Amino acid sequence: MEFFEAVEKRRSIRKYSDKKVPPEVINKALDAALLAPNSSNMQTWQFHWVRTEEKKKRLAVACLDQGAAKTAQELIVVSVSPSLWKKTSQDILRSGIPAGLEKKMQPYYSKLIPFLYGFQILAPFKWLMFNVIGIFRPIMRQPWSWRDREEVCIKSAALACQNFMLAITAQGFDTCPMEGFDESRVKKILKFKCSDRIVMVISVGERVDRGVWGQRYRSPREWFVHEV
Amino acid sequence: MEFFEAVEKRRSIRKYSDKKVPPEVINKALDAALLAPNSSNMQTWQFHWVRTEEKKKRLAVACLDQGAAKTAQELIVVSVSPSLWKKTSQDILRSGIPAGLEKKMQPYYSKLIPFLYGFQILAPFKWLMFNVIGIFRPIMRQPWSWRDREEVCIKSAALACQNFMLAITAQGFDTCPMEGFDESRVKKILKFKCSDRIVMVISVGERVDRGVWGQRYRSPREWFVHEV
Repeated sequence: MEFFEAVEKRRSIRKYSDKKVPPEVINKALDAALLAPNSSNMQTWQFHWVRTEEKKKRLAVACLDQGAAKTAQELIVVSVSPSLWKKTSQDILRSGIPAGLEKKMQPYYSKLIPFLYGFQILAPFKWLMFNVIGIFRPIMRQPWSWRDREEVCIKSAALACQNFMLAITAQGFDTCPMEGFDESRVKKILKFKCSDRIVMVISVGERVDRGVWGQRYRSPREWFVHEV
Repeated sequence: MEFFEAVEKRRSIRKYSDKKVPPEVINKALDAALLAPNSSNMQTWQFHWVRTEEKKKRLAVACLDQGAAKTAQELIVVSVSPSLWKKTSQDILRSGIPAGLEKKMQPYYSKLIPFLYGFQILAPFKWLMFNVIGIFRPIMRQPWSWRDREEVCIKSAALACQNFMLAITAQGFDTCPMEGFDESRVKKILKFKCSDRIVMVISVGERVDRGVWGQRYRSPREWFVHEV
């Protein structure tokens, strides 16, 4: 499907038909998700494709029993594991640095990334350091806290989510991104680590005629787009 | 361009050519961005297309002088204004509710959204309420804090960023999403409100041969995709 057609066609679907979604459709969309850009290539994203019927049912309840979850053919829980940076940065140091960039990227992944993502106990010190240096010259002010690090991870995962949803649309199926869920219960159902955060739950299926809530509505463009 | 071709072709570009980007390319990508799904349709996203040369130069410095900013033809600063929910929810109540859904959506936008997004002073009470009710039945646990609200807004804006970047690729140009910037300085340059948050700075142009850092690298798929 042409890109802009997919963007136009994608709508949040609240009710799906009984048509099954072939596993290769989901897999192709997951592959597209993993090609999204992400912060320092830390790839802290996690895609949980819930395939057992019992878990799907419990998950729909944890998604507050909304139609988009209850009638879904497939459910994907997207989360982040912020601590995954340790594994991925080691992996990049081993085999992910492009030829000729070793000098620049070795210290980036072996020193800067551990300082930014790790040593959470130094958070107040990092904040102070960034903001004192920042008086004199431009410097990144974040991530210094636990929550900042979560934010960076969630942002990257959201980019991947959009790739995933458009990829499903491009293959003739539909999605709904859900933020209306009970994070504690979803984490329990899927046995997530305490430090994991859920980004969104995405349901997949084929839309029924009244599966969409109505015409797409957006406020006037000039509220959001500014030429400066 | 075909959707999957755009996903494959999109890379983060660190050096651009001198070729100008027609304004209609940017505008078309901004229109695509505004079609991304977003939390409760609150559209708290903001796209600042920096067109004055002086501001572009200052912005590149605030982006730590990285090549992706310095050589960019166009720079778009994506931010969120969490307090925009007041304006957009009123707008939706006036003209954005689909026929037949008034009964369900009027209280959603006139009561639930103000409770979740506003009344920040009640944050500890909200936390307590969500977590006490949550003992007995599934309930959303967030947003209860200021930071939660920012997170929700940033997540939606990131979905729009991905639409924007793919839309630029689909039109034959390139992008780089940057998180390496001095948020305080960027906010000063663009005169943002204190409560605004910057999501990312996206540069646009045409890639030069060595504009990309090398082969795309991703860690093994099974680290990120789990069938459960």
